[in-house]
Amino acid sequence: VTAAGGEDALVDWLRGKLGVEGAVLGDDAALLDLPAGGWAATVDSQIEGIHFPSGLPPERIGRRLLAVNLSDLAAVGAEPSFALLALAAPPDYPRRPLLAALAGALTAHRTRLVGGDLARSPRLVASLTLVGRLPSGGRWLRRGQARAGDRLWVGGTLGESAAGRQVLAAGARWPEGQEVGLPAQLAASSSADTARRAVIRHLAPEPQLALGRWLGTRDRAAAIDLSDGLARDLHRLVAASGVAAEVDAAALPTPLGLPVLAALLETDPHELVLAGGEDYVLLFTLPEAEVPPAEHGCVAIGRIAAGQGVTLVDGTHRRPLEPEGWDHLG
Amino acid sequence: VTAAGGEDALVDWLRGKLGVEGAVLGDDAALLDLPAGGWAATVDSQIEGIHFPSGLPPERIGRRLLAVNLSDLAAVGAEPSFALLALAAPPDYPRRPLLAALAGALTAHRTRLVGGDLARSPRLVASLTLVGRLPSGGRWLRRGQARAGDRLWVGGTLGESAAGRQVLAAGARWPEGQEVGLPAQLAASSSADTARRAVIRHLAPEPQLALGRWLGTRDRAAAIDLSDGLARDLHRLVAASGVAAEVDAAALPTPLGLPVLAALLETDPHELVLAGGEDYVLLFTLPEAEVPPAEHGCVAIGRIAAGQGVTLVDGTHRRPLEPEGWDHLG
Repeated sequence: VTAAGGEDALVDWLRGKLGVEGAVLGDDAALLDLPAGGWAATVDSQIEGIHFPSGLPPERIGRRLLAVNLSDLAAVGAEPSFALLALAAPPDYPRRPLLAALAGALTAHRTRLVGGDLARSPRLVASLTLVGRLPSGGRWLRRGQARAGDRLWVGGTLGESAAGRQVLAAGARWPEGQEVGLPAQLAASSSADTARRAVIRHLAPEPQLALGRWLGTRDRAAAIDLSDGLARDLHRLVAASGVAAEVDAAALPTPLGLPVLAALLETDPHELVLAGGEDYVLLFTLPEAEVPPAEHGCVAIGRIAAGQGVTLVDGTHRRPLEPEGWDHLG
Repeated sequence: VTAAGGEDALVDWLRGKLGVEGAVLGDDAALLDLPAGGWAATVDSQIEGIHFPSGLPPERIGRRLLAVNLSDLAAVGAEPSFALLALAAPPDYPRRPLLAALAGALTAHRTRLVGGDLARSPRLVASLTLVGRLPSGGRWLRRGQARAGDRLWVGGTLGESAAGRQVLAAGARWPEGQEVGLPAQLAASSSADTARRAVIRHLAPEPQLALGRWLGTRDRAAAIDLSDGLARDLHRLVAASGVAAEVDAAALPTPLGLPVLAALLETDPHELVLAGGEDYVLLFTLPEAEVPPAEHGCVAIGRIAAGQGVTLVDGTHRRPLEPEGWDHLG
């Protein structure tokens, strides 16, 4: 931990909060005694004005930062072990609520915060490095392991998070410890509950660590975290595997109320589903005979074929799905 | 690696630049097979306008980012092994020169870039997580290992980097592949060479990895990286060790020309030396009989005593040295 000037007190406070030995948070680098084996490392950032609107409660930022990182570990089948935080914020930013929420979420995932860097910045930029372990008896999930004949699955509904982003942009707020507050027009509409759930889905994604661990017990599974939208991330998966994919448009799971909410937001619901992004569920493939346990809420959305590229199949209609999503369809 | 939209091409380019298997840079998390043992992890950031002036060449930012992180590993006696980068920059920022310079510097240190996160941001914020190993047969260096009777050492001169920061603030520039350019008044002065070296010392610190490794072969050594100035970092070391320190003011090593340069910059040279910061040399203690090999350029600056706090001894004059440095002296 390096901490500018008056930050020593903040580090001391955080050390107490985390309840770990001073040894871990205190030297220039965290000193760790690691067992041999498979380890996974990832880094993700949350930047004010880019990943979340200004004015978001610091607690939500702290927890979201961890959630998006955990989703990356879920996508390779790892279990979180330890984390390092780089936090740059304006001098008067309420860092303690952010750090306390992050520390609580880390503890809930039995993950240690072992290092950090605190700095000043005109806007909040928080980057979390997360290191996880391969569970004993597990296999890594890789993007490149899809084979022709596999079935293609998603771990949850699509488009809801992107809708939530637009609801927030329209003026919704979710103060810590309170319900989601909607702008008047949405609050009075039949989509109010759908809109509230979309905001929660966007701000508090639930990384699919248990699903990732289950996939790691299979003989072969390819997986990727859906962060940049189905279209783009599926292209990444098929490119890494040297295969093609066919997506059944009718099978794509969305929350029931999404089309009406999208109409109120003056947005194309297909765009939300195919390219909205930040779904933070797993996109994965399994040999045809394998079906994930029902508790993970997975839905089969297509299949893997020989060749390359992604085809969207809508009844008898077939058309290429470009990485950019719906916008760029012919 | 997650990379927004058009970033896939950049990641592909970087993968080629690094010459590593796609496996390492490509899945949602880097998959690593690590041997058991001691590992050290640290994170440090470089933020435009905070850690360096706007307009600094991207190559220098990339190399400085690595150097300040390596200095943290040096302070615990670790050898660098792998790194993860979070880079947030304006859309039109020349990221390739920064990444290429960082990649080159990583390769020179036999360190792999295994993951990253690329995002947009109005100002450049680069955070590097660095993970290193305990060399075989080595011991960790810790802040808490100083004992009364030890001698106190620094690994190089003090104050030069802080002077360089002020020379940059006065308008100096160091374009990639060229000499340091000074503002007219400094360029015409007898301090021109001192000023140029100060800028280089500030922008291109040389982390003391070899010194850290040597200290790790000793039975007992305490160490800390001098990033926030001698006064503050020495207070951290003595607090962690539960001891006091006496610093011999006359022994503090500074470049010969520093006092004259400081006068031109209208700065107190004592302030630069005691509290200027960003020296990026090691501050360490050894039992009295032990002397570091001459090649590391170390200088004994005082001794460790029972008690607490830091005393500055100037001839027969003794006064407390507060963590804030010279400014706050009585």
